[in-house]
Amino acid sequence: MSDFSFVRGLRCVTCDAEFSLDDLTYTCPACGPVRGTLDVEYDIGQLRAAFIDELLKERDDRTLWRYHELLPVRDAEAVLPLPIEVSPLVWLACDPGFTAPKRLLVKDDTRHPSGSSKDRATSVAVAHARELGKTAIAAASTGNAAASLAMFAARAGLGCYIFVPESAPAAKLTQIRAHGAHLFAVRGTYDDAFSLCAEVCAQEGFYNRNTATNPYLGEGKKTIALEIWEQLGFRVPETVIVPVGDGCILGGVFKGFRDLHEIGLIPRLPRVIGVQAEGSAALASAWRAGQDACMAVSAETIADSLAVAMPRDQVKALRAVRESGGQFVTVSDAAICEAMHVLATRAGLFVEPAAAASLAGLKEAAAGGHVGLDDEVVLLLTGHGLKDIAAADRAAHNNQPIHVGLDLDEVTAALHP
Amino acid sequence: MSDFSFVRGLRCVTCDAEFSLDDLTYTCPACGPVRGTLDVEYDIGQLRAAFIDELLKERDDRTLWRYHELLPVRDAEAVLPLPIEVSPLVWLACDPGFTAPKRLLVKDDTRHPSGSSKDRATSVAVAHARELGKTAIAAASTGNAAASLAMFAARAGLGCYIFVPESAPAAKLTQIRAHGAHLFAVRGTYDDAFSLCAEVCAQEGFYNRNTATNPYLGEGKKTIALEIWEQLGFRVPETVIVPVGDGCILGGVFKGFRDLHEIGLIPRLPRVIGVQAEGSAALASAWRAGQDACMAVSAETIADSLAVAMPRDQVKALRAVRESGGQFVTVSDAAICEAMHVLATRAGLFVEPAAAASLAGLKEAAAGGHVGLDDEVVLLLTGHGLKDIAAADRAAHNNQPIHVGLDLDEVTAALHP
Repeated sequence: MSDFSFVRGLRCVTCDAEFSLDDLTYTCPACGPVRGTLDVEYDIGQLRAAFIDELLKERDDRTLWRYHELLPVRDAEAVLPLPIEVSPLVWLACDPGFTAPKRLLVKDDTRHPSGSSKDRATSVAVAHARELGKTAIAAASTGNAAASLAMFAARAGLGCYIFVPESAPAAKLTQIRAHGAHLFAVRGTYDDAFSLCAEVCAQEGFYNRNTATNPYLGEGKKTIALEIWEQLGFRVPETVIVPVGDGCILGGVFKGFRDLHEIGLIPRLPRVIGVQAEGSAALASAWRAGQDACMAVSAETIADSLAVAMPRDQVKALRAVRESGGQFVTVSDAAICEAMHVLATRAGLFVEPAAAASLAGLKEAAAGGHVGLDDEVVLLLTGHGLKDIAAADRAAHNNQPIHVGLDLDEVTAALHP
Repeated sequence: MSDFSFVRGLRCVTCDAEFSLDDLTYTCPACGPVRGTLDVEYDIGQLRAAFIDELLKERDDRTLWRYHELLPVRDAEAVLPLPIEVSPLVWLACDPGFTAPKRLLVKDDTRHPSGSSKDRATSVAVAHARELGKTAIAAASTGNAAASLAMFAARAGLGCYIFVPESAPAAKLTQIRAHGAHLFAVRGTYDDAFSLCAEVCAQEGFYNRNTATNPYLGEGKKTIALEIWEQLGFRVPETVIVPVGDGCILGGVFKGFRDLHEIGLIPRLPRVIGVQAEGSAALASAWRAGQDACMAVSAETIADSLAVAMPRDQVKALRAVRESGGQFVTVSDAAICEAMHVLATRAGLFVEPAAAASLAGLKEAAAGGHVGLDDEVVLLLTGHGLKDIAAADRAAHNNQPIHVGLDLDEVTAALHP
């Protein structure tokens, strides 16, 4: 058990107070509700001695647990063989429709079992819940996180309790219901559902898989960075572009690179660029105003996975951009639809709007001089296109069927107008 | 090029007439339209000498091209690095709700890029089209095959032409339209769309990716069998259970095992059991009646991927069951929904109805004595649950949200009734 994880402790992102892993706490009592989750810290000295490239070259495990020394679960027995394998990192060998860096890759997280990056955080959460002896797990979410949790809870034999605002559209709940999760439709807002979920977890002893609360979720997401590093032959690109809602993925990706840097496995940090939808840009606005806290916005965007009024992991997201020399950019819904179209028609990549925001964000970042044409750039694709057929339909609206009779001439005329 | 593939020729499934690969023909002129595609034959002597377990152990390629000697594409340059990786083969470690064999595995083809097994056939078709110098590829389909083709054509930079009956529901066409395929809505039936597609291919020189026609598609599907064999440590299970519409996947899976058997790599053939929906059971009916040709049925089932009036690869499908000592079983829509529910809630596997038919079919086969409780059995899961949200909703209808106010007591009462 001692060599399985080199996790050491937790630290408040605001005041730097330290917490031990055993008196598991989700918030810092000194700071009250901080604007993000606690930092998870590792024994860097142990990692420097034991976590080396050569180790990975000999490791057959293709799940994210191949990086177990850098994950917060200490009991190897708690880890189930859930199929979260290394996701593809592939060259985007197509014309994106604007002047873009030549060395452009996509990290395709749409290929995970439930169809999104959330499976990484869920995998760590399920193992942690099992380590703590929990038999049930809960979250407040209408989307990919809840679908992911419902799937993996079913696989792990854990009870699953999901809290959503009553206004959540029925179609978004099908994947959650299909996996047999207990679904509570709360008469109130998302924030109300979130608070109620926390109360229920405290009362019932459920494991709380909520982004605003649980410090271990970002540790699952940081495996995106570890995989990129390994897939590039143990080096890092100049820039990684990440769609941002709550900021948890952005903070997680940065954390992965920062861990590698602290251990001494990479000589520099890649820039991380966060992409927000124009209609849901609380973090980008705070960044531009030079503030270290967000103002709530009225979130409105086709990219439902990015629609967040008040980002819940804002400290880590802002820190990721600041410490990496990165940037925030914003993109319109029209630009997101155009990026979906380019990815689907030129690269054969079918993604949900939030994922396409990466490519739209690259266009903004390149135009703004935040990305050089000689840079090697990785775009993170977070969710599969089948997650949101209505949005896919909207993005494809210019490609309508051609109606023909049983007549070769009609087809010929359409083919050669 | 000579060692890349050991394909030798084509043979009529009805009269055994031989055809060379170079005068590429899709049907046997002597037999007229045969009830299935031509057989693809390999040089078994060459394979016996050169295709051995040890070869695969050293091969890094995780796509289906790791079996390139056993695939019909002769020009290695025609193969693109499309991401059709080996799909997971995992233990189904849950109570399926009936007395089932203990050693029960699922082959999870829902994890392919477009979300279904069809990506295997498409991968071979795209490479073959490139080998022939084609710049466009066509198919008549409303479903998974067309979505797969549209995705991979976009990735390969080939033009893509899809023909569907005008009555096809709009939602099924979104994935096809999103990838920029040229979509023709034909005023007529599916058979009309199919015929028109063939005429257009002949006139325009498009590559024809149609199951009834193209003998290479089943070769892509046979990699399911090759992967199972390799994933089990170079041995085969007693039984493989396959959902059946046209019969192409069933015939393909059997072909993979038959190739291995002919080469001498396995000592016996697994039984293949074909599962049809009760409302679309042309092959099962022919089998029960001891006939070697199907009568058309009026196909009606929740499993749209299995709704086939006249199976187009019927000779190969019937032969697969006959020569392997297998069986056909039929399952009701209710049994399919129950199987979806079991897979989603107990195994965390979210599949479309056609895929769940495998588990429903196992129940039938076990009850009928066609599967022994000591047998090792593999269930093929063909398509992802996100492919058909309406069906998922129907299967989950008993799991409705519990409406609560902002009140812990209301939740507590619901949790502990």
